[in-house]
Amino acid sequence: MIQNPKFGHFDDTRREYVITDPKTPWPWINYLGNEDFFSLISNTAGGYSFYKDAKFRRLTRYRYNNVPMDNDGRYFYIKDGDTIWNPGWKPCRTPMDSYECRHGMNYTRITGSKDGIEASALFFVPLHKWCEVQKLTLSNLSTERKQFKLFSFQEWCLWNAATDMENFQRNFSTGEVEVEGSTIYHKTEYRERRNHYAFYHVNHPVSGFDTDRETFMGLYSDKCAPDAVVEGRSRNSIAHGWSPIASHCIEVDLLPGERKDFVFLLGYVENEQENKFVERQVINKEKAHSLIAEFDTAEKVDAAFDELCAYWDRLLSVYTVKSSNEKLDRMVNIWNQYQCMVTFCMSRSASFFESGIGRGMGFRDSNQDLVGFVHQIPERARQRIIDIASTQFADGGCYHQYQPLSKRGNNDIGGGFNDDPCWLIFGTVAYIKETGDFSILDEMVPFDNQPGTEVTLFDHLRISMDHVLNNLGPHKLPLIGRADWNDCLNLNCFSWDPNESFQTTENNSEGSQAESLMIAGLFVVTGKDYVELCRHLGKAEEADRMQQAVDAMVEAVKNHGWDGEWFLRAYDFYGNKIGSDENAEGKIFIESQGWCTMAGIGLEEGLCDKALDSVSERMECEHGIVLNNPAFTTYHVEMGEISSYPPGYKENAGIFCHNNPWVIIGETVAGRGNDAWRHYTKILPSYVEEKYQALHKLEPYVNCQMVAGKDAARPGEGKNSWLTGTAAWMWYTVSAFILGVQPTYDGLLINPCLPDTATEYEVCRKFRGGEYHIHVKNPAGVQKGVKQITVDGKPLTGNVVPVLEGRHEVEVIMG
Amino acid sequence: MIQNPKFGHFDDTRREYVITDPKTPWPWINYLGNEDFFSLISNTAGGYSFYKDAKFRRLTRYRYNNVPMDNDGRYFYIKDGDTIWNPGWKPCRTPMDSYECRHGMNYTRITGSKDGIEASALFFVPLHKWCEVQKLTLSNLSTERKQFKLFSFQEWCLWNAATDMENFQRNFSTGEVEVEGSTIYHKTEYRERRNHYAFYHVNHPVSGFDTDRETFMGLYSDKCAPDAVVEGRSRNSIAHGWSPIASHCIEVDLLPGERKDFVFLLGYVENEQENKFVERQVINKEKAHSLIAEFDTAEKVDAAFDELCAYWDRLLSVYTVKSSNEKLDRMVNIWNQYQCMVTFCMSRSASFFESGIGRGMGFRDSNQDLVGFVHQIPERARQRIIDIASTQFADGGCYHQYQPLSKRGNNDIGGGFNDDPCWLIFGTVAYIKETGDFSILDEMVPFDNQPGTEVTLFDHLRISMDHVLNNLGPHKLPLIGRADWNDCLNLNCFSWDPNESFQTTENNSEGSQAESLMIAGLFVVTGKDYVELCRHLGKAEEADRMQQAVDAMVEAVKNHGWDGEWFLRAYDFYGNKIGSDENAEGKIFIESQGWCTMAGIGLEEGLCDKALDSVSERMECEHGIVLNNPAFTTYHVEMGEISSYPPGYKENAGIFCHNNPWVIIGETVAGRGNDAWRHYTKILPSYVEEKYQALHKLEPYVNCQMVAGKDAARPGEGKNSWLTGTAAWMWYTVSAFILGVQPTYDGLLINPCLPDTATEYEVCRKFRGGEYHIHVKNPAGVQKGVKQITVDGKPLTGNVVPVLEGRHEVEVIMG
Repeated sequence: MIQNPKFGHFDDTRREYVITDPKTPWPWINYLGNEDFFSLISNTAGGYSFYKDAKFRRLTRYRYNNVPMDNDGRYFYIKDGDTIWNPGWKPCRTPMDSYECRHGMNYTRITGSKDGIEASALFFVPLHKWCEVQKLTLSNLSTERKQFKLFSFQEWCLWNAATDMENFQRNFSTGEVEVEGSTIYHKTEYRERRNHYAFYHVNHPVSGFDTDRETFMGLYSDKCAPDAVVEGRSRNSIAHGWSPIASHCIEVDLLPGERKDFVFLLGYVENEQENKFVERQVINKEKAHSLIAEFDTAEKVDAAFDELCAYWDRLLSVYTVKSSNEKLDRMVNIWNQYQCMVTFCMSRSASFFESGIGRGMGFRDSNQDLVGFVHQIPERARQRIIDIASTQFADGGCYHQYQPLSKRGNNDIGGGFNDDPCWLIFGTVAYIKETGDFSILDEMVPFDNQPGTEVTLFDHLRISMDHVLNNLGPHKLPLIGRADWNDCLNLNCFSWDPNESFQTTENNSEGSQAESLMIAGLFVVTGKDYVELCRHLGKAEEADRMQQAVDAMVEAVKNHGWDGEWFLRAYDFYGNKIGSDENAEGKIFIESQGWCTMAGIGLEEGLCDKALDSVSERMECEHGIVLNNPAFTTYHVEMGEISSYPPGYKENAGIFCHNNPWVIIGETVAGRGNDAWRHYTKILPSYVEEKYQALHKLEPYVNCQMVAGKDAARPGEGKNSWLTGTAAWMWYTVSAFILGVQPTYDGLLINPCLPDTATEYEVCRKFRGGEYHIHVKNPAGVQKGVKQITVDGKPLTGNVVPVLEGRHEVEVIMG
Repeated sequence: MIQNPKFGHFDDTRREYVITDPKTPWPWINYLGNEDFFSLISNTAGGYSFYKDAKFRRLTRYRYNNVPMDNDGRYFYIKDGDTIWNPGWKPCRTPMDSYECRHGMNYTRITGSKDGIEASALFFVPLHKWCEVQKLTLSNLSTERKQFKLFSFQEWCLWNAATDMENFQRNFSTGEVEVEGSTIYHKTEYRERRNHYAFYHVNHPVSGFDTDRETFMGLYSDKCAPDAVVEGRSRNSIAHGWSPIASHCIEVDLLPGERKDFVFLLGYVENEQENKFVERQVINKEKAHSLIAEFDTAEKVDAAFDELCAYWDRLLSVYTVKSSNEKLDRMVNIWNQYQCMVTFCMSRSASFFESGIGRGMGFRDSNQDLVGFVHQIPERARQRIIDIASTQFADGGCYHQYQPLSKRGNNDIGGGFNDDPCWLIFGTVAYIKETGDFSILDEMVPFDNQPGTEVTLFDHLRISMDHVLNNLGPHKLPLIGRADWNDCLNLNCFSWDPNESFQTTENNSEGSQAESLMIAGLFVVTGKDYVELCRHLGKAEEADRMQQAVDAMVEAVKNHGWDGEWFLRAYDFYGNKIGSDENAEGKIFIESQGWCTMAGIGLEEGLCDKALDSVSERMECEHGIVLNNPAFTTYHVEMGEISSYPPGYKENAGIFCHNNPWVIIGETVAGRGNDAWRHYTKILPSYVEEKYQALHKLEPYVNCQMVAGKDAARPGEGKNSWLTGTAAWMWYTVSAFILGVQPTYDGLLINPCLPDTATEYEVCRKFRGGEYHIHVKNPAGVQKGVKQITVDGKPLTGNVVPVLEGRHEVEVIMG
């Protein structure tokens, strides 16, 4: 039995996770900002900030995988006599009298106290602003006067996070700063092609400052004891090359019981080319001055913070649940929705596992993420859809990624991931069903961002479907291309060179027979959506055409995609089966079970039940459902990256949380609420928190991409938290399929699927101007099925509650 | 007056630099290995190892620009009671009773002592072997028995140094190790496409080991106090993902006066595909066992070390000088030649400023480096020339870089640096003059490594010359292309996007008038070489053809390249002058003064003297000659990267040491020995060491690429040590032009150019089977001119000593 020490707890009232031990098993982080300016912040104030793009506009420097881990951030050093400590414990790690970190909705508050001094730092990015506010409150809790020194510290990144850690023969000569009063300006490369700078300000006179890291820190000193702090004396250094930093020194004097606020501001400014300098080599600081003036008092900061909280009140009021299960409620009402917003903002770019320099916005990822936030911020979802579709090619193929700064397709990765086009249907349909805004389909959207190539968004959807149909293999199943959703199942790659990327190498695609059952299922699901959409639009002919294609695909799956007890995963380049009982390893895969059961293929014939039973028998374990079984123990050149991972990790039989919800939805399609619930709670963070946090290691308030599977050396160990499609899929699953409140073109479909022990809950849903209070009761203890619905006391025919203005009471009796 | 604290001293007898204070102003490093396996090692044992290619085969992990600086390496922790210390001081930084680091020729010995224990570690890579030997000798200097624990520590890099620090969502799941006795095997990705692994062994039973970093170190501990060491207890951890390391624990027991040797071995092995495993998931260790057996006793290690020393005895015996100036002698006899060997091995890839992932072998760099080592290892120079020429294009253009592993041209950088082709002449001629081996010219060498395209190397030389002639501009001067030698003078780039590379962006080359005087001078110098070569080969017609072209170029320079007091630097895209008195900034540049005076253009008319005087007046400062003057204070889009640096740094008016020797050689061509010597000693490391080491910061035994110039914030501060063409050019300058012993096709040309205060010196030169003891006397105190030479007592006509077998005494009287 593994011990389960606790490192904190949920505070649902304040929508916070409260960390009470700084020594979490891995840094537990939060995200600040939700528009242009973003920060990552750990429970010890580690992390970094960037503007829009974590690769090209990195503002502060962060060293991944360092020793000690997570040792760069915005740090406040308190030098009280000979004692030096930080309110967030790190980097000094001086024992404190108290420590608490509260991660909330786009803010984090860290409070520490020692020897009668309390330091509480609130970190957030004000709405629509390009800055991180750090409001530090220092209190004298003692009965004696306290005089001590406060040092701030941040290290600048030289903008491009990739070259910042590679090109020292240049970088060590380029660093430049200016200092004006209590503001330190970082202006490296501003003299040349950059039109932007950053600054770090405090609203208080300083007794000194430092901008040269070595001068402040010492070449041989640890971050826990910078030379300047140990001596209690800033050097007023001006950086010339090497490593520019920003550090203020403030003399603090507090009477017994007194408290003082200090507002630190990390800001970013862009200037027009013709307005960059006020004189030779002196930058134009006008915009910085304005930004500083907006937050130069604690009162202004508090007002901005209240605005942020009100913003989140609004976002989280669109869908709320009240049940007898607090672990369910806190995930649905707070953390799952919050994580969805973060994946919207970050895609897969910047976390404590994603270094912010490797990946742009995924075509597939972003469409999936959309179902997680479209109910909160539909207008931004709309723009996202247009942005994504604009990178599509005229044949329906897609760039696999696009760059957040330029919104252009990423040529380094290219296309050829044959599931990608379908996801555009998925995202667009979700948007229209939420909003009823069919006008998006008339938007003129280019191909590959080329002006003059515009067609309607609807045309993009049509060619997306056709791209699948134009790329069918010998069994009339979809050809897989470089990969489908599983980027690591590379059936046409055949790579022996370790310096090749499995995703972009495709040595052998000519004559390939590699087909994907996952795309087949996805095509049926999105194809049905497309047909329904066409019918709504009155495009009967197009609807009929695609219905035939969907029917044909269903037949192809039944004829060539069924292995006897489960769905095959794929055919390889040579036409051999993958994910079949015939195989020695990798007999069964999760993706095709998920998508084919979601699509209801063979539901009547019992194929879905069989497949789902096989999932439980062969792939389910204590911590969730693994991706495949048995794990691969050797490299299979004909399968690519999947077999490159050690057994039980990542795509090689790890619990790849993203795809667990597919099976869960499949279970709800089959009406198996008990199974759905069991699978759901196994990977639900609030359940994990209770059961095995120390083993799991990662943040207890969000899902991670992967939990080590049963074949792994350490089953249950989590990796790659925060930035995963799991967030959106968990949300989609619980909101629409378990709690069963699902937007349709015509209203809210009510169709819960629950464990038979569930008795009652209430969902409050805001939807197209209406506010629906949906009370679900399950007196018969069924797993699925709606016996009766009344709206405001009146019985409803069917189970779609129509679009209505104002507040309405919806009573639902299952049975 | 700046203080000049000393951190060490030269020990010329042992050919070592002895560092006596571990707190050098920057890590002072050395290189181990000179063939396939390489290590960087600092004076505190920091650094890393790689096999052939520092990007693709990085064996151990190193974090550049960390806090504290240089905190990764091969570390031995001695846990003696409650005290923990390292013989190299870091990472513990525990004060010791003694510390000494001796950097020698491809070896480093670090010795520390504390509380009666002495630990002395000898690090080297045995000749032709793929391993680093670490022989640790522990001695009990006290009168009491000493029982303590020894922990080793190294951290593995996951092979590709670039993705190792970017792709954590994958990397944290892939790490794998095996442990067998006292050997820890690192086999990440071996299961898939890699056919290589590494190991860390000690020839002694261990009481424990660790292979998982977090288990050994603790997530929150500094490297100065790993959890396992503090507790004195290994955890015997097996890494699964995260960060694999290698650490042994040995119980040491020493009687008074006793000493024991421990041989640690970091090795690299490649296996054949069919022979990778002995059973499923268990690697084939046969080759590792063999390698271990070769170094499993101190005696075997000592023998290998003696071999290495003997190897360097041979290399350094080819050219030695004995004068009354020890600062000159130690540079000529030891350190300058040693640095040349390192630049041969590393090109510009891996130093403490070059991260090992950015750059391959430069076409230009490698040809220049050749003059630094061709006398030592002519057979490897021959192969290098063939490798380089094989990447050339059929039109004479060149890939600017090629990859050391594949020896293929680097498509990311491409070509278009119009000086590149000339350097092939430069390198090849140097090789033939040293060896007399004209047969290299008949080697069949392909274009762009394409089989079937082979022509003779001589043909490559011919098309190289023609590439210049086929790319002349409006003044009949060479078009510059992307850049000439100065990679930062980008006259066709016109970049406003900070994410563009100045070197690879060329927005505007159509219709460009951008011409380079540097290439003009280079063409004249190498053209003369080419003409001389043709005459030696009996190719009179070709010689005549090229002589005419050279003459025409000289005329073009005189007519369009002379600004009145110095040579112009270039014409820009629009045909405007660069490096002219007409310009507000950048009136004069060093490169064209160097090359045009080396070429002797306008020597008779006094142009060379004028140009050299202008150099001294306008560009010389206390620490050397700056690149241009005045420095650029704003960005000039029409000049590119040069104007992106802050004034006084790098190509923007830094002392770019590489080009100082061009002026020095120009001074010798003009017979100005006093000026040549003054320029030479200003950047000679042994002089810098004596004068201002603390300001300069970098290793006192080698040149660095750049010293901050007079316009800089901190003039005299060095950057980018070790990997610079400065090494070869300093060697070429002092050996051939100052001391004046210069290989020619027919023998050794004796033509010294010295300060008039020089009286006497002796050069011993091995050359094509002969050994020449050349005694130079300067009774008249001239700066240049040979009055009389006798060989073995017989007068010589002219000043070329012919090729002779055996030992010969050469007496030279200047006058």
